[in-house]
Amino acid sequence: MLTMQDALLALTKYWTDRGCMVVQPFNTEVGAGTLNPATILRVLGPEPWRVAYVEPSVRPDDSRYGENPNRLQTHTQFQVVLKPDPGNPQELFLESLTALGIDIHAHDVRFVEDNWANPATGSWGLGWEVWLDGLEITQFTYFQQAGGMTLDPVSVEITYGIERIMMALQGVSHFKDIAYAPGISYGEAFGQAEYEMSRYYLDDADVESQKRLFEEYAAEARRMIDDRLPVPAHIQVLRCSHTFNVLDARGAVSTTERAKAFGRMRTLAREVSRLWAERREELQYPLGHAELPPAAAEPTEFPALTGTRQLTFEIGTEEMPPSEVTKTAEAVRSALEEKLGATRLGHGAITTYATPRRVVAFVASVQAGEPDAERVVRGPKKAAAYDADGNLTKAAAGFARGQKVDPSELHDLDVDGVEYVAVTKPDPGRGAAEVLSGVLSEIVKGLRSDKNMRWNDANLSFTRPIRWLVALLGDEVVPVSVSTLAAGRTTRVHRTAAPPKVEIASAEGYLDLLRIHGIEADPAKRREQIVAAATELAKGVNGAVDFEGESALVDQIVNLIEEPTAILGGFAADYLELPSEILTTVMRKHQRYLPVRDTDGKLLPHFVAVANGSVDEDVVRAGNEGVLRARYEDAAFFWRADLETPLESMKGELEKLAFEERLGSMADRAGRIGRIALALAGTVELDGDDLTTLKRAAELAKFDLGSQMVVELTSLAGTMAREYARRAGETGGVAQALFDMELPRSAGDPVPSTTPGALLALADRFDLLAGLFGVGAKPTGSSDPFALRRAAGGVVAILREHPELRAITLETGLQAAAAEIGAQGIDVPAESLDEVAEFTVRRYEQQLLDRGDDHLQVAAVLPLATAPAAADETLKTLQGLVGNSDFADLVAVLQRVRRIVPEGTEAAYDSSKLTEPAEVVLHEAVQKIGQAPTGLSDFVAATSVLVEPVNAFFDEILVMAKEPEIRAARLGLLATISQLAAPVLDWQALGTSLSPAE
Amino acid sequence: MLTMQDALLALTKYWTDRGCMVVQPFNTEVGAGTLNPATILRVLGPEPWRVAYVEPSVRPDDSRYGENPNRLQTHTQFQVVLKPDPGNPQELFLESLTALGIDIHAHDVRFVEDNWANPATGSWGLGWEVWLDGLEITQFTYFQQAGGMTLDPVSVEITYGIERIMMALQGVSHFKDIAYAPGISYGEAFGQAEYEMSRYYLDDADVESQKRLFEEYAAEARRMIDDRLPVPAHIQVLRCSHTFNVLDARGAVSTTERAKAFGRMRTLAREVSRLWAERREELQYPLGHAELPPAAAEPTEFPALTGTRQLTFEIGTEEMPPSEVTKTAEAVRSALEEKLGATRLGHGAITTYATPRRVVAFVASVQAGEPDAERVVRGPKKAAAYDADGNLTKAAAGFARGQKVDPSELHDLDVDGVEYVAVTKPDPGRGAAEVLSGVLSEIVKGLRSDKNMRWNDANLSFTRPIRWLVALLGDEVVPVSVSTLAAGRTTRVHRTAAPPKVEIASAEGYLDLLRIHGIEADPAKRREQIVAAATELAKGVNGAVDFEGESALVDQIVNLIEEPTAILGGFAADYLELPSEILTTVMRKHQRYLPVRDTDGKLLPHFVAVANGSVDEDVVRAGNEGVLRARYEDAAFFWRADLETPLESMKGELEKLAFEERLGSMADRAGRIGRIALALAGTVELDGDDLTTLKRAAELAKFDLGSQMVVELTSLAGTMAREYARRAGETGGVAQALFDMELPRSAGDPVPSTTPGALLALADRFDLLAGLFGVGAKPTGSSDPFALRRAAGGVVAILREHPELRAITLETGLQAAAAEIGAQGIDVPAESLDEVAEFTVRRYEQQLLDRGDDHLQVAAVLPLATAPAAADETLKTLQGLVGNSDFADLVAVLQRVRRIVPEGTEAAYDSSKLTEPAEVVLHEAVQKIGQAPTGLSDFVAATSVLVEPVNAFFDEILVMAKEPEIRAARLGLLATISQLAAPVLDWQALGTSLSPAE
Repeated sequence: MLTMQDALLALTKYWTDRGCMVVQPFNTEVGAGTLNPATILRVLGPEPWRVAYVEPSVRPDDSRYGENPNRLQTHTQFQVVLKPDPGNPQELFLESLTALGIDIHAHDVRFVEDNWANPATGSWGLGWEVWLDGLEITQFTYFQQAGGMTLDPVSVEITYGIERIMMALQGVSHFKDIAYAPGISYGEAFGQAEYEMSRYYLDDADVESQKRLFEEYAAEARRMIDDRLPVPAHIQVLRCSHTFNVLDARGAVSTTERAKAFGRMRTLAREVSRLWAERREELQYPLGHAELPPAAAEPTEFPALTGTRQLTFEIGTEEMPPSEVTKTAEAVRSALEEKLGATRLGHGAITTYATPRRVVAFVASVQAGEPDAERVVRGPKKAAAYDADGNLTKAAAGFARGQKVDPSELHDLDVDGVEYVAVTKPDPGRGAAEVLSGVLSEIVKGLRSDKNMRWNDANLSFTRPIRWLVALLGDEVVPVSVSTLAAGRTTRVHRTAAPPKVEIASAEGYLDLLRIHGIEADPAKRREQIVAAATELAKGVNGAVDFEGESALVDQIVNLIEEPTAILGGFAADYLELPSEILTTVMRKHQRYLPVRDTDGKLLPHFVAVANGSVDEDVVRAGNEGVLRARYEDAAFFWRADLETPLESMKGELEKLAFEERLGSMADRAGRIGRIALALAGTVELDGDDLTTLKRAAELAKFDLGSQMVVELTSLAGTMAREYARRAGETGGVAQALFDMELPRSAGDPVPSTTPGALLALADRFDLLAGLFGVGAKPTGSSDPFALRRAAGGVVAILREHPELRAITLETGLQAAAAEIGAQGIDVPAESLDEVAEFTVRRYEQQLLDRGDDHLQVAAVLPLATAPAAADETLKTLQGLVGNSDFADLVAVLQRVRRIVPEGTEAAYDSSKLTEPAEVVLHEAVQKIGQAPTGLSDFVAATSVLVEPVNAFFDEILVMAKEPEIRAARLGLLATISQLAAPVLDWQALGTSLSPAE
Repeated sequence: MLTMQDALLALTKYWTDRGCMVVQPFNTEVGAGTLNPATILRVLGPEPWRVAYVEPSVRPDDSRYGENPNRLQTHTQFQVVLKPDPGNPQELFLESLTALGIDIHAHDVRFVEDNWANPATGSWGLGWEVWLDGLEITQFTYFQQAGGMTLDPVSVEITYGIERIMMALQGVSHFKDIAYAPGISYGEAFGQAEYEMSRYYLDDADVESQKRLFEEYAAEARRMIDDRLPVPAHIQVLRCSHTFNVLDARGAVSTTERAKAFGRMRTLAREVSRLWAERREELQYPLGHAELPPAAAEPTEFPALTGTRQLTFEIGTEEMPPSEVTKTAEAVRSALEEKLGATRLGHGAITTYATPRRVVAFVASVQAGEPDAERVVRGPKKAAAYDADGNLTKAAAGFARGQKVDPSELHDLDVDGVEYVAVTKPDPGRGAAEVLSGVLSEIVKGLRSDKNMRWNDANLSFTRPIRWLVALLGDEVVPVSVSTLAAGRTTRVHRTAAPPKVEIASAEGYLDLLRIHGIEADPAKRREQIVAAATELAKGVNGAVDFEGESALVDQIVNLIEEPTAILGGFAADYLELPSEILTTVMRKHQRYLPVRDTDGKLLPHFVAVANGSVDEDVVRAGNEGVLRARYEDAAFFWRADLETPLESMKGELEKLAFEERLGSMADRAGRIGRIALALAGTVELDGDDLTTLKRAAELAKFDLGSQMVVELTSLAGTMAREYARRAGETGGVAQALFDMELPRSAGDPVPSTTPGALLALADRFDLLAGLFGVGAKPTGSSDPFALRRAAGGVVAILREHPELRAITLETGLQAAAAEIGAQGIDVPAESLDEVAEFTVRRYEQQLLDRGDDHLQVAAVLPLATAPAAADETLKTLQGLVGNSDFADLVAVLQRVRRIVPEGTEAAYDSSKLTEPAEVVLHEAVQKIGQAPTGLSDFVAATSVLVEPVNAFFDEILVMAKEPEIRAARLGLLATISQLAAPVLDWQALGTSLSPAE
């Protein structure tokens, strides 16, 4: 049995054998190995650095008195930093697992997207959590930025979670049972410390003393920065951080304090980083400069080809995030189409596939080369090309010389009626290989994702490192060189295969060759395989998988593996006593398992996990079951603990949850939501049971955020509120309202089913929008940390589907929120509210356009979108009127009127000035209509009578009469018509789209 | 090349293979691996514990900006704790050196006495520093007490100094040049941190902030103890300690603060230990109970022997301190003599030898057994044994039954004139083996040293562990069992020998067998070998060793090795520019090297080191030379630095040196010494040059304690003062006075040669004595931390040898000191001064007795010892008068007078009441003498006239006359005589020793 200390020694040995230096854990508490200066400072600057060390990582908030099987106030990280990226860090990592005695052929080892960011220090990286049979055992990050500084070169950071690995390897279910050393368990060795430090962090640390310590450390950090001593300064920052964490664990950090503390630590940490970088430069980089691989040679010779063949182009990557897999395949396809289109190279269909580790493009029937062509080069204007005697001027002669042609070859060229001299030169077609070399190289260089990173290639940037290229046209390699990469015919198959690299004979044989090695490049086929296998497995336990409901999950799974190996796992039926949402949330979100249900849709104690490639199914099943068991055990623990906690106590916990610096705690926010909801209830004159329900639900709003379950599984907010409220004896209405208030969770999600729930949900989102726009925290291009887009979309969706709330407009809602926020002393400026309203209207517009509505019609109803339900109705009516020529005439007339009436013209006139018959008729028609209805149908019914008089008016009357009074009266008449029409919709926006002529 | 990280891994592997658990360095700064709870707490209580770990040990005071080649603010310890003592920890340790690639056959590895104590936490242990060719590479301690608690079982603590080991192994002379990892030097890896942390600790840390932190940590430690959480409490204590160390390095700790801080830390640390022990007990000792080896079987059968043979008895130990080696041999010899004397076993001469690792006793011609004898058992008194009829009483019959004899065998026995009944029984002699078995066992049990320890034997206690016994009588093993040890015929030779254990055929062959294995058990022979070899080696460089001067050192060396291998080493002649005292101090005190001098006594650049056993001499020479070079380099650095420092600056440093809590800093003390010396100079009416010299020397008193050299080599105090004063242009007199004031350094050392020096030396010691007795810190039985015995002895020695200072008595000196101490606000009670005076007189007495003076005569002059020179004179006179019968008569007369006069009788009388002739004569004789001189010669001359009148008075006069007036007058007359004699000496003390009759 490998003990934990054996494991640490094995890893140390493994990594030192690979050139890592060993350092000791840091001698002040750190929350993670990353904060040891051997990582956070050494990743800065150009010096090479390879280090490995153990780091007991202290997280006061994870204190559990040693009772929780997986959570410790101090857990053991094994940290590796490789700077620069050695080019094969994943392979090195996998070998290290072998060094730990893990049979990577038997287990399912996976790199699952997980990015790391510590905004507090301006640090982030992209990478994965590494799964061993579903258990996260390692964090693997390409470190991109630290202390606000971009890393060049980037470092690979590998952080093993040792306790977890040991629990899996030793098959124990509580950390205390880990065999730490021969004859000594983890609990025996560290149990007392775990208990006592938990006591200290959770219960006993003196809060006021810790606050004073924070001040001392922060002041000392500042002084050391001023003294230009980054090492002692860093220690002080770490102490600040730990002290803060202790205070936090003691529940002693108010929102304001938190923000202030974070601000100070952020500033200090960044200055330490900057100072360290400066000092290393002053010391002239004692460790030298890291070397990156050299650029591949530019291709100079291209194989000559005959006949048409298929192009297979493979871009080999490290595991892309599932969401990027499909997008990248499509991006490559369209780039190929565009770039090939810009050449003369004939070709057939373009297809692209992708797996997590490769994007493959196939171009059918590529011609051997471009056809030859001619190219006309324009010279001087003809007038300047010949002198009065008809002889060539110097300019023209120079042009011919420059083009290396005899002047006699110049000919005339007419460009838009101007005459030039020109030469026509042959443009010989390039061979296919040469054409493709350029195109494919550009495609690789142009690859981009939502979030891009760097690795050991100075010139490329993508979602994850690109490690190899295959480019085959028929049997021939197309020479493609991109930065350090040169394409060949060698692809990579499963990393555990022997050998892991294989040669591809021809472009046409690519897919089959991959299949021989177990890899299915076509995502559609992978999906089919998953569905077929999971169906079969589920059937074996008289169950089924709801593939429709799990479609997004299946999509994700498809993009997480290259060779689906579905495995049926089970869990103890006891856990079925937990609400099924808990069980399925854990399965889906954390584990990507497919839930299995019986014919009634009831959850069965089974799941389907999809491993990658051939594994020892029993081993992998056991591993995954173990992980799920641990998670369910946690959930059951939370569930039981929560059920013993009064709702008010949970609600009380909200005081400790920060919301946003200036907007107070989650308790503040929940209070506001309740009051806003009641204000909105007043607007819609809610009464009776609904009002009673709302009042109680408002009191409890968001209480479940204080439950242990939701702290762990945030996506269960609302779900748990309903469960806990029901079980605590609240009415079904109240429980449902609390559930409803979290809806919709995303675009397309159902909206609240009840009016009280809808009111709370609206209040929630109005508070969020008004508050955050009010404090200037509105979303930018890619950053929307508070999910305000989703909130605005939710407001729209709710208002559209709750016509009983029609009296609530965006304005009334936002103002109610602003009033509550203002009561807390935070003034929300009127412009901010306008901005939110506009922002929300854009969400509405987007919803309509996404639904496929005509963009002109959508534009026409947007002025009504402050009450989306009304806008919906108008749009519906409008759509019904499409094709109706009377309506088209009305629209034309109203548009004409609007066009003529200058902006700002008063809708009033002195009718005594109107004397011509056509204007009198129109005047009378207008008078007859009086106040027109604003609903579109009614408006059309009431105003179609104007079509003829208006047309007659325009035919017969000169609006711009010389006499000012007459002119004013005529414009006033038209403005009156325009004003009648204005509230109905934006007539101009419809353009001529409705006119029957088109 | 073994890199430092390889070495750490190799040690980790080595010790885990031997059952050690690995833990991580502690995550708060510790000054030594001992303070990691894995040592300081885990050594407590009965649980077994084996642990190994790396500990970067932070000592702010050792900060040198990375410039000093050997000193770092953070150095790396590798710590091993073995609990219980495995019985062979030295062997395990040596194997670990082999694991590090150290060839222990080639190198000279030695265990040199070095005890560890941390009174601050009530922790101590006995052990060694381990030398590798003279370089201290490891601290090896049997941990006896921690946190004030006696350890049971004791732990073995092995602390490797990794940087030193690496420097030796890699042959580099600066820590920065250590190859830390492949391609990375220590300096490259840690140089910046070393510099910056030095800056922080020495220059930049905010003193006020650190003081506040100390308070915070101490308060939190207290709270945690109250909460019964020893683990977090311990962390807080460590933080206190580190913070204190930072303050100290910043020079910011006043004496009062230091004492206060230590007091607080001590209390906290002890409470943490106690609490930890309690908590472990409450947790029912999760790791169980350590097991010690079982007791050896008691011998039941003894070999029968014939003829007389030699007994060889060997007690095998781990390396004893040199001072214990000789003492133990003598103790065993006298114990054997005494215990064998109490048996009837005939034997010849008893001889004992000792080496560091064994004490051997030889008893020649041991008889085969005791002769048979008879034994008389006393019964009841005869009167009670027979009734009136002459029949046996029940009591007597019972006695006979009890003795298992027939009543007829009872006979009479006269004891001091009382008659008893008794039986006489045969007492058969025991065989030699049986007799010796008991005797030898008792000898081992009775072994004691000045400072004893425990190891894995619950019943033994000695200076170092006893590991084996050999007991041979001729060819036979004498069965001896002592606790876990059973004697046999297997002894141990050099640990590096193959095999290290050998069988001994017969007692007579023992010494030769050891010699075959290179071991000389006879210390006299070892001494001869050393002298011969060193003489020869020194001759090779035209030099010699001053064996007379170095006698104590040679004694020490003899007891440090079992097989002397003298090696001549050299050092760069440049270093000879340093004062030779520096060079020889380093050689003797630190390295136990013999200095080599030329015929003029001038130091040569050579030394003789004595290695143990056969080694690779080149390797050992190079190693020792390297160590000496590093030490001389340090010394040269201090020397140069000191020479550039004005004397006043050095003196200024005394402010930072603590003396004693209540008595202030060393600067306070030096100030007092100067002023006391000047007061004493007044007493003796010093004037002229001597006074000028004294005044200046008083200003500079003890300035060299502030020099870097003396901080490093404290025994050079005074020596350096003279050197530095001279070179700073002070007069020769001042320089000499500053040198003198430190004399005598020990009993037998020369006293100051000059009067100013003597006055300063007296002032120094009076201050020490008055001050420390005054604050109640007087020495107890074994504890004399301030060496007050030596100080008192020094006072006596100086006053005896400086008759020009006769006016200074103990009282005047102590009062002058008390006055100065009083001026600092510390009242020295009069009783304390009396106590010191008495204490000092006892030193005087001891000096005389040690010199061999008659104890009665010594007692007689002790009343004069407050002026030891005067007492000396009286004693000398007294000794001259011994045998003089007139003097004897005078003494007898004076003693008779003294005996008769009741204590408190007034020395006055009404002479008119004296009317009898004898009393009148005596009265007149007394009147004639008037005030008798107090010097003994003069007194005798003046008072011998009293002998006859006194004798006549006693013959003829009844002192106790009935008439009170007459009685009073007669007693008054005698009291007057008694008073005349009293100041001269204590006549009664002489007893009858002088009376000619005896």
